[in-house]
Amino acid sequence: MQLVTITDIETAAGRIKGTAVHTPLLRQLWVPGEFWVKPESLQPIGAFKIRGAYNAIAALTDAERERGVVAYSSGNHAQAVAYAAREFGIPAVIVVPDVTPRLKVEATLRWGAEVREVPIAERESAALGLAEERGLTLIPPFDHPDIIAGQGTVGLEIAQDLPDVETVLVPISGGGFASGVGTAIKTKCPNAKVYGVEPELAADTAASLAAGKRVDWPIADRARTIADGLRAQPSELTFAHLQRVLDGVLTVTEDEIRDTVRVLAQQGRLVTEPSGATAPAAYLHHADELPGGRTVAIVSGGNIDPAMLAELLA
Amino acid sequence: MQLVTITDIETAAGRIKGTAVHTPLLRQLWVPGEFWVKPESLQPIGAFKIRGAYNAIAALTDAERERGVVAYSSGNHAQAVAYAAREFGIPAVIVVPDVTPRLKVEATLRWGAEVREVPIAERESAALGLAEERGLTLIPPFDHPDIIAGQGTVGLEIAQDLPDVETVLVPISGGGFASGVGTAIKTKCPNAKVYGVEPELAADTAASLAAGKRVDWPIADRARTIADGLRAQPSELTFAHLQRVLDGVLTVTEDEIRDTVRVLAQQGRLVTEPSGATAPAAYLHHADELPGGRTVAIVSGGNIDPAMLAELLA
Repeated sequence: MQLVTITDIETAAGRIKGTAVHTPLLRQLWVPGEFWVKPESLQPIGAFKIRGAYNAIAALTDAERERGVVAYSSGNHAQAVAYAAREFGIPAVIVVPDVTPRLKVEATLRWGAEVREVPIAERESAALGLAEERGLTLIPPFDHPDIIAGQGTVGLEIAQDLPDVETVLVPISGGGFASGVGTAIKTKCPNAKVYGVEPELAADTAASLAAGKRVDWPIADRARTIADGLRAQPSELTFAHLQRVLDGVLTVTEDEIRDTVRVLAQQGRLVTEPSGATAPAAYLHHADELPGGRTVAIVSGGNIDPAMLAELLA
Repeated sequence: MQLVTITDIETAAGRIKGTAVHTPLLRQLWVPGEFWVKPESLQPIGAFKIRGAYNAIAALTDAERERGVVAYSSGNHAQAVAYAAREFGIPAVIVVPDVTPRLKVEATLRWGAEVREVPIAERESAALGLAEERGLTLIPPFDHPDIIAGQGTVGLEIAQDLPDVETVLVPISGGGFASGVGTAIKTKCPNAKVYGVEPELAADTAASLAAGKRVDWPIADRARTIADGLRAQPSELTFAHLQRVLDGVLTVTEDEIRDTVRVLAQQGRLVTEPSGATAPAAYLHHADELPGGRTVAIVSGGNIDPAMLAELLA
């Protein structure tokens, strides 16, 4: 299997320049040790997903791109594809389950995308049907080399801004983010360790890596975590990357995630969503399971319901 | 009167590198027009004040620096001086009114400073007494060229990251921040307009500039605003800068400030304090009083009481 290379990631970095923000490393001085967060929550759509989506669309041929793109997602990937398509001035159709909260549908409509609401079981087939019918290209959320390469630019920025980083913490869902970041870090900072982080309630990748092969967790189990962006499972492609680039996977509890959302707002002045607080939660609550040294945890996103944030702060 | 020059600001930029974060410009796409915020709330102590305090201490002679520094403040300047002194490994004494909330005292103690609590009317004399007695150097919050030059590095970063910026919005309290930022912008981007922003309830600088001389507002009046970092008044030195570099001053209401704290958390994923939300509030609520075009509003700080943030979000 062909894995994504550092050259792919460097090409992606050139493409996304001016669209994705080069987010700063923010030293967190209220916690012992040398600890930084990288706030991808500050991207235009509030999550790192803009990097992969933009890179994937940039990699299309002119003819493909002109016909437009389609994606199925109700989360940050939907907004990322809609936003990136608008930047290119091309049509985008986003297929969402008909149970998607109004707020999320509107966030996607804002970027000018067409939104199709379908029964949840039909969203993949509806997207594929639209792709065929209209000649649209499907932009998958993680299972594609261009997506992995785009997300990997986060690792490239870490290597550039803190070349002697010792530990990097990245959340795992479908694994595209950790695949890309891990590839960049392992190439540019060969002595650094890269750890994935999962909610204890959706720890399929920890189980899979321990078993040496992909282990399936029922979606009903994975759906229990508050970290709604971390409920997917790796594909064959991302799992192959993870086996190669990760030094381990840490799991965090729901209380640890909630606590980290709260403390990052109070001490770090960052609004994070539960999925976004998962990697920092591993440092704050499981430092004893980490090698120590200069550590960066990636805050993957900040799209939290204001009522939930208010509740966690009160 | 000798005003701060771009050379002073560039020297300051060299000194603070590695201590203050070069904060990114964050495009805010949920609002019409080309609008960015510069989140100084993400500095190590949660406010731009670290820039001036660090530059002022760096500018001391070795002998002065070794003896240590003193400041009187209960706000972000206290934390900035304490933090900068720790970075240099020198003693710092912070004089605070004895009515200062425990939380703020602890935030300063965290950086290893000695905190002296005195009756509010005595804080200046207590600080001066300590300075004389122990040979400490007083680091003033705004009325000093090295402070102005340090704060001005924010303007230098804006000019570097968005050379064709058309409008810059900066909050005014003692005026050191607006003096420095205005000087940098007017030199590097001569076509850009620079506007100060004040709470309507502490609009002494708007009145002063209109009168062509400093007008005194009673502290009881200025104390009414929720923006507790914007209750000071310009000195002779800062007022001379403001007369030269500002194109105008906008005022915002208390409701506009509160609304902006809320919306910056929800849409911008930033935790801001009321003073920090004041400049963006001018863009969000008074765009008709501005020339338009590419606009940057500086978010000066993010040290808000979590209970207040929760209340504004609920």
